[in-house]
Amino acid sequence: MAPIKAVILNGSLKTSDETSNTDALTREITNLFDHEGVKHETIRLADYHLKFGISADLGEGDEWPSIFEKVKEADIVMIGTPVWLGEKSSVTALAIERLYGGASLTNDKGQSVYYNKVGGVVVTGNEDGAKNAARSILYALSHLGFVIPPNVDTYWVGEAGPGPSFIEANGIENDFTRHHVTMQAYNLIHLAKRLKENPIPAEGNFIED
Amino acid sequence: MAPIKAVILNGSLKTSDETSNTDALTREITNLFDHEGVKHETIRLADYHLKFGISADLGEGDEWPSIFEKVKEADIVMIGTPVWLGEKSSVTALAIERLYGGASLTNDKGQSVYYNKVGGVVVTGNEDGAKNAARSILYALSHLGFVIPPNVDTYWVGEAGPGPSFIEANGIENDFTRHHVTMQAYNLIHLAKRLKENPIPAEGNFIED
Amino acid sequence: MAPIKAVILNGSLKTSDETSNTDALTREITNLFDHEGVKHETIRLADYHLKFGISADLGEGDEWPSIFEKVKEADIVMIGTPVWLGEKSSVTALAIERLYGGASLTNDKGQSVYYNKVGGVVVTGNEDGAKNAARSILYALSHLGFVIPPNVDTYWVGEAGPGPSFIEANGIENDFTRHHVTMQAYNLIHLAKRLKENPIPAEGNFIED
Amino acid sequence: MAPIKAVILNGSLKTSDETSNTDALTREITNLFDHEGVKHETIRLADYHLKFGISADLGEGDEWPSIFEKVKEADIVMIGTPVWLGEKSSVTALAIERLYGGASLTNDKGQSVYYNKVGGVVVTGNEDGAKNAARSILYALSHLGFVIPPNVDTYWVGEAGPGPSFIEANGIENDFTRHHVTMQAYNLIHLAKRLKENPIPAEGNFIED
Repeated sequence: MAPIKAVILNGSLKTSDETSNTDALTREITNLFDHEGVKHETIRLADYHLKFGISADLGEGDEWPSIFEKVKEADIVMIGTPVWLGEKSSVTALAIERLYGGASLTNDKGQSVYYNKVGGVVVTGNEDGAKNAARSILYALSHLGFVIPPNVDTYWVGEAGPGPSFIEANGIENDFTRHHVTMQAYNLIHLAKRLKENPIPAEGNFIED
Repeated sequence: MAPIKAVILNGSLKTSDETSNTDALTREITNLFDHEGVKHETIRLADYHLKFGISADLGEGDEWPSIFEKVKEADIVMIGTPVWLGEKSSVTALAIERLYGGASLTNDKGQSVYYNKVGGVVVTGNEDGAKNAARSILYALSHLGFVIPPNVDTYWVGEAGPGPSFIEANGIENDFTRHHVTMQAYNLIHLAKRLKENPIPAEGNFIED
Repeated sequence: MAPIKAVILNGSLKTSDETSNTDALTREITNLFDHEGVKHETIRLADYHLKFGISADLGEGDEWPSIFEKVKEADIVMIGTPVWLGEKSSVTALAIERLYGGASLTNDKGQSVYYNKVGGVVVTGNEDGAKNAARSILYALSHLGFVIPPNVDTYWVGEAGPGPSFIEANGIENDFTRHHVTMQAYNLIHLAKRLKENPIPAEGNFIED
Repeated sequence: MAPIKAVILNGSLKTSDETSNTDALTREITNLFDHEGVKHETIRLADYHLKFGISADLGEGDEWPSIFEKVKEADIVMIGTPVWLGEKSSVTALAIERLYGGASLTNDKGQSVYYNKVGGVVVTGNEDGAKNAARSILYALSHLGFVIPPNVDTYWVGEAGPGPSFIEANGIENDFTRHHVTMQAYNLIHLAKRLKENPIPAEGNFIED
């Protein structure tokens, strides 16, 4: 079997010349991917010029199509987001709209192009909102055709109110977060392998009825 | 002017023979009510036999009607809830459904019976989900006819994962939470007084078009 | 292989002496289960005396434990809910809290007792709120250990505002809803069979780190 | 009293060379503003180059500051959004993040710069998600310091699944939507006038404790 491939879309509001707390937590998962031979690439969405709209390709100057190619080739798609006002970031929302714009495309069996891929989410924030962000993202992925393995919502947030973020707070020492890192990494791999070896049968699940 | 009256519906899953963290945080607000001459009563919803359904009165054995009377007499209605799986409690959901069941009732001007009342929310949990619970409750109150003053979403939650709740964690020492206690108490009072002195004009806002 | 078993928890606010629109839509899915040899049982939650609390068993008079036994034996768990104020019902919220109360229980490999089960959701309402209800329920199931197959969020709602519900509106003639009935039924079966034949490996996903 | 001023931020994904259904519904409200002497301006956010980030001013090339000036001068702020995957648009999310970036600014009494302004929301979509989008936006506005009058969540969505949008479906003939147009317009005006004549007292609600 070819190696499992993962792509991580990091919806930080910052470009990659700035440190991303979400990236730091994601790397805890990709370290386990390395250990298990999963190839992975992280894309800092804010580095790209992504047009607004519901389409897989919005024409001249739109840099989404190259990202979409990587999503199509991946077995595992993770979306990372910071929390602002208790919600996922606008950059993340944009990426989900763009994924939605490709949802009518099909694989060679007539299923959505996202079938047989697994999805997960990584969230960091200084406080409250991680589950809400995870809920939104996992639902979107599921609705678009991804399989959602168990316990693929890794997050760290601090106590209510302003405070340090993941890196500064040394959030990786949080047992709950560390446990979820491991569960998420392994469950993504387990299910991705199964679906690669043995894809979802083409019965009852075509894009067109 | 008659004194301002507040009623607090506490949606804890526990009856009042057990300590409620949400009640402890609510009392920080009602202490300021006492200081400002606002009369208040807290109702532990789990102490009552509340039937499921969308109606202000579900007949024999239903103890909601007496609570609804207190809501109708109140100038300030606060809903308190714990957080479970990042959401408000089922008891709180039930109370909101019951409030919805009374939403077609009108005051003597033909507006919703909830007009000229102000709403607020208090949330506690050991971790993540407070803003999501507050968002749900404040939207419901607004949709039903309450006025939502600024900054009436007081909460305390701890760092991601299992951990102590508000009382045990001494959450009241959290500056952010304390600041919100004060803003919520005063903004509820300020707006409640204004609406009592000078109700929303009966123009464009009748229940029936 | 033993037949696949499904259990449907219907969170209607009404007891089973009244017709449930959510039940009517669910039966479209269970008709396909019948065709495919899946055994199924639908439980109208409002028929039972279910105590409020975060525990798998709340003692004398609590009728949840017998429902929990059926969940544990099932390969497929579907939750059905009506929409009130754009959200899932309080009865549904209660059931999710009770499922959460059992989440620390493990199977014989040390994984959550919900591993190797698949989850789905059915929502009906006269108007807006289905995706929000589905989002909440699917996230909870995923966070508790269920696998979420693609496209398992079947719903019907009408145009904005008051109006007829699923049965009266003849919602089953809606192409989108019918398509989702089929996708949901088959994807639940496909994934349930796979997980029964070939469970998720016990690696990296124990309840305790 | 100076005339009431309203600003509408339309978070359509389309620039103003394309027709916006959300704009069409918003105009039903601004027609009533015209009738009542309220001055108003609608800003199509996608026409501007708005940088991503949590700040009132992100420097060279950022066109948010001119929009923020209009928000600061307004008595009524409405946010309009289309629905995608059951949520508000990414453009709307970006605007809310930018508003949040200005939340530490104060008026001359030390309250948030958003105090004494009222907020409302307008949502259109071909199907499900309006209440969820409204819930998110109204909560954000309330948390930032706006007053939320009763019934300021006007929306139109069609039956479940793909279908015509507001203009094509002639959604304005929907009684529920029309009723909300009137309630929203008048309640925004009523409360804006009250707060302009008689601002929220500077007591207990300073930005800094």
